[in-house]
Amino acid sequence: MTRIDLNADLGEGFGVWRLGDDEALLGVVTSANVACGFHAGDPGTMRRVCARAADAGVAVGAQVSYRDLAGFGRRFIDVEPQELADDVLYQLAALDGIARASGTRVSYVKPHGALYNATVAHEEQASAVVDAVAALGGLPVLGLPGSALLRVAESAGLRAVREGFADRGYAADGTLVPRREAGALVRDPAAVAGRAVRMAVDGEVVAVDGTTVRLEVESVCVHGDTTGAVELARAVRTALEAAGLAVAPFAG
Amino acid sequence: MTRIDLNADLGEGFGVWRLGDDEALLGVVTSANVACGFHAGDPGTMRRVCARAADAGVAVGAQVSYRDLAGFGRRFIDVEPQELADDVLYQLAALDGIARASGTRVSYVKPHGALYNATVAHEEQASAVVDAVAALGGLPVLGLPGSALLRVAESAGLRAVREGFADRGYAADGTLVPRREAGALVRDPAAVAGRAVRMAVDGEVVAVDGTTVRLEVESVCVHGDTTGAVELARAVRTALEAAGLAVAPFAG
Amino acid sequence: MTRIDLNADLGEGFGVWRLGDDEALLGVVTSANVACGFHAGDPGTMRRVCARAADAGVAVGAQVSYRDLAGFGRRFIDVEPQELADDVLYQLAALDGIARASGTRVSYVKPHGALYNATVAHEEQASAVVDAVAALGGLPVLGLPGSALLRVAESAGLRAVREGFADRGYAADGTLVPRREAGALVRDPAAVAGRAVRMAVDGEVVAVDGTTVRLEVESVCVHGDTTGAVELARAVRTALEAAGLAVAPFAG
Amino acid sequence: MTRIDLNADLGEGFGVWRLGDDEALLGVVTSANVACGFHAGDPGTMRRVCARAADAGVAVGAQVSYRDLAGFGRRFIDVEPQELADDVLYQLAALDGIARASGTRVSYVKPHGALYNATVAHEEQASAVVDAVAALGGLPVLGLPGSALLRVAESAGLRAVREGFADRGYAADGTLVPRREAGALVRDPAAVAGRAVRMAVDGEVVAVDGTTVRLEVESVCVHGDTTGAVELARAVRTALEAAGLAVAPFAG
Repeated sequence: MTRIDLNADLGEGFGVWRLGDDEALLGVVTSANVACGFHAGDPGTMRRVCARAADAGVAVGAQVSYRDLAGFGRRFIDVEPQELADDVLYQLAALDGIARASGTRVSYVKPHGALYNATVAHEEQASAVVDAVAALGGLPVLGLPGSALLRVAESAGLRAVREGFADRGYAADGTLVPRREAGALVRDPAAVAGRAVRMAVDGEVVAVDGTTVRLEVESVCVHGDTTGAVELARAVRTALEAAGLAVAPFAG
Repeated sequence: MTRIDLNADLGEGFGVWRLGDDEALLGVVTSANVACGFHAGDPGTMRRVCARAADAGVAVGAQVSYRDLAGFGRRFIDVEPQELADDVLYQLAALDGIARASGTRVSYVKPHGALYNATVAHEEQASAVVDAVAALGGLPVLGLPGSALLRVAESAGLRAVREGFADRGYAADGTLVPRREAGALVRDPAAVAGRAVRMAVDGEVVAVDGTTVRLEVESVCVHGDTTGAVELARAVRTALEAAGLAVAPFAG
Repeated sequence: MTRIDLNADLGEGFGVWRLGDDEALLGVVTSANVACGFHAGDPGTMRRVCARAADAGVAVGAQVSYRDLAGFGRRFIDVEPQELADDVLYQLAALDGIARASGTRVSYVKPHGALYNATVAHEEQASAVVDAVAALGGLPVLGLPGSALLRVAESAGLRAVREGFADRGYAADGTLVPRREAGALVRDPAAVAGRAVRMAVDGEVVAVDGTTVRLEVESVCVHGDTTGAVELARAVRTALEAAGLAVAPFAG
Repeated sequence: MTRIDLNADLGEGFGVWRLGDDEALLGVVTSANVACGFHAGDPGTMRRVCARAADAGVAVGAQVSYRDLAGFGRRFIDVEPQELADDVLYQLAALDGIARASGTRVSYVKPHGALYNATVAHEEQASAVVDAVAALGGLPVLGLPGSALLRVAESAGLRAVREGFADRGYAADGTLVPRREAGALVRDPAAVAGRAVRMAVDGEVVAVDGTTVRLEVESVCVHGDTTGAVELARAVRTALEAAGLAVAPFAG
């Protein structure tokens, strides 16, 4: 039976503020990218999400970010690679300790927001992230197929896990359509679910220009902070299971 | 041969800012209380201090604090115990990961500043600190003899390590003379060194009123951020060694 | 025609995070206590709320706080009075500049959360807040009847504006019933509206023990961050107007 | 008598941390670029520097920055122009209020660090800074000759004040030699002083390739956070005065 992972960003509140429905999503996804305090995620939220993920059998990943609470980690920061590596190490270590204290472990790393986008092409920052992960034992890294991040991770001997976005448009070259362009987002739940199944079963996606593109992925990312996010995630999971796939953590 | 530990606060810079001479103090003390990012201590500073401590054979302790960079952790914060426990867990875990990546480990915990002072008597906050330490495996806790912190730590099955302050005045009941009162500080290096030796060898200190007070300690704290701090620490160490004591980490 | 003001906390999001429905509340209240960045409120949010308040004819007040984003300003911090005065001055000045750039002005000051509670009895912190307000020209201060804050403000020659809480229980001595005790909250909208009218018209409130207490107020506070907050505020406003009161900013 | 201004960055500590000798520099410079809390500068430091600047007759400028305490504002952040404008407005307003409460006023604006460098060429960010300044009444903007910042400021009707760096090397096209290249820094105090005089008197500087470059400036910047900074600043001032120039704030 083919296996597919379903990941989402979780624990992205801070203090009194909440974002998305962590509780509900933990009932749907198989991997939780947990914010580590630099773009979101206070220690209490981190502990609660880890504890519930442990109960639900959901794998915990460290969603590491630039240090930028005010910008939610969505702004590129031209940080020196060594500083970035130190920042990532700090976040990863903090979450791992909280996860252990909550009966689970961090089992992978996924950069957040602008750091995710930057490490698609920015070799030095990609290497900095990988250095930090390698320094703490070498967990798998989750990222965009074709990204510098995954290439560098693989070179460093780490497991590089490719993910697809069922609700995002792809260009013919396999890259994501930028958010401001037409076709960037797929909103119809049935279409999103169908794309997820095609990625998981056939390893392909139909690009905005109608061509079929190879896209072999081990994980499908669903977004957690938009209206209808939980319903969409459920629709994706249901469709994947109906297609005969085993929906389970890639890291397990 | 009687053994005594010498501890100091280190890594208390943040970003471009520095406080004290970490490098020099690492050549003198046997235990380094490393700031974990909440009152001071950015990830890069934490890594550099841990790496040098590993080289120098200095034990690394987590100097955990209230979340208060602007106040350097010197202001009491009436934080809920569960939040405090989560904050301590986060800091301890972050430093431990950085220490591991630097070839060492966190081997004890010591609260900083206002949290140190609060946990002398504040049972709930003392318990919160202990809960966090226990949740990550139960490291020794370094603190003031007679404090709620050490009592609660012991009850929880943790090793409670008592420390003395060679440059602080003591009242006849064994408590520290408040900083604003006369006799709070001992400034003469020879006097400070002599008091350290008496604590370590005889387990006693002469109080401000002239009475001799029992003060059995496993560690002597020297301050790192004042003028002449390094020289004072060296004088203390030299005197302890001259008195035939083994100056070595208590945690080791 | 008797005049009554209706105030609420607004602009209490930060970055991507939102709290309460600022837009809707600005259509109901007459005074907006705008967060200034220390417990909530990023510069963009401050500007948007000020601009809309200007359009709506709603008075802008500076909702000043301890520096505590992680705790939303709800935790007492034992900050030195001079530091607190400087922090308040900074927040007040920042909001006033943004308000001017948005076509309005800050017309009063109201402490937030733990600072509001502390300045009921903490003379030094109350004086620190007043010192900061006086240093910038001496705006009115909004607070709890009988508080040190209002007393000190009056002594300093500032206008001290008393407010009532229509949805909070009062003890026979006119103080608020602590949140954890029975009777702390009044939840029935009709009851809340009725209490607001009685405060505004008769200057009294029925305490939890049934006695009638004098409570002369110039402003009624409604909460903005709870479920049904907007509906409750509308009910209060409608009732006040139906009772023949002029609902208008006290600072105007 | 030709007039020249001497500016330096001041108030760049945060909490317990200090950077440079504010006190001494306030006795030498005529314009103080005061940090506003986003890269450095807590409210207490801001107030103390403003009060001493008022006493010393030194003009106060707002040294606005990206929001980046951990990076001291030295890292480019790809912030949206509207957010940047709001951040600048907040900082400028906060300092202006503190300056007023201290007996002076903010009389100009100068971006700090990475924002200074970015606005040399980044039109959107330059416009954002100018928009914020214009929104608060339109103070003069201090910057690099030829920068987008000064061009946009001028277009917006603001006074654009050109500054020179006596201790930095210039290329033949009038741009600064990047810090990592040879000739980036001039270290000899006599040489630095001589270059300051030549800029102020003749409006020119000798570039690293020996050619003479036009460089008409109204202000000369001296650095405050390096060893020997105060002595260097004094040497520059003495040389300017010896050359018969009136050393005085440009904004006055």
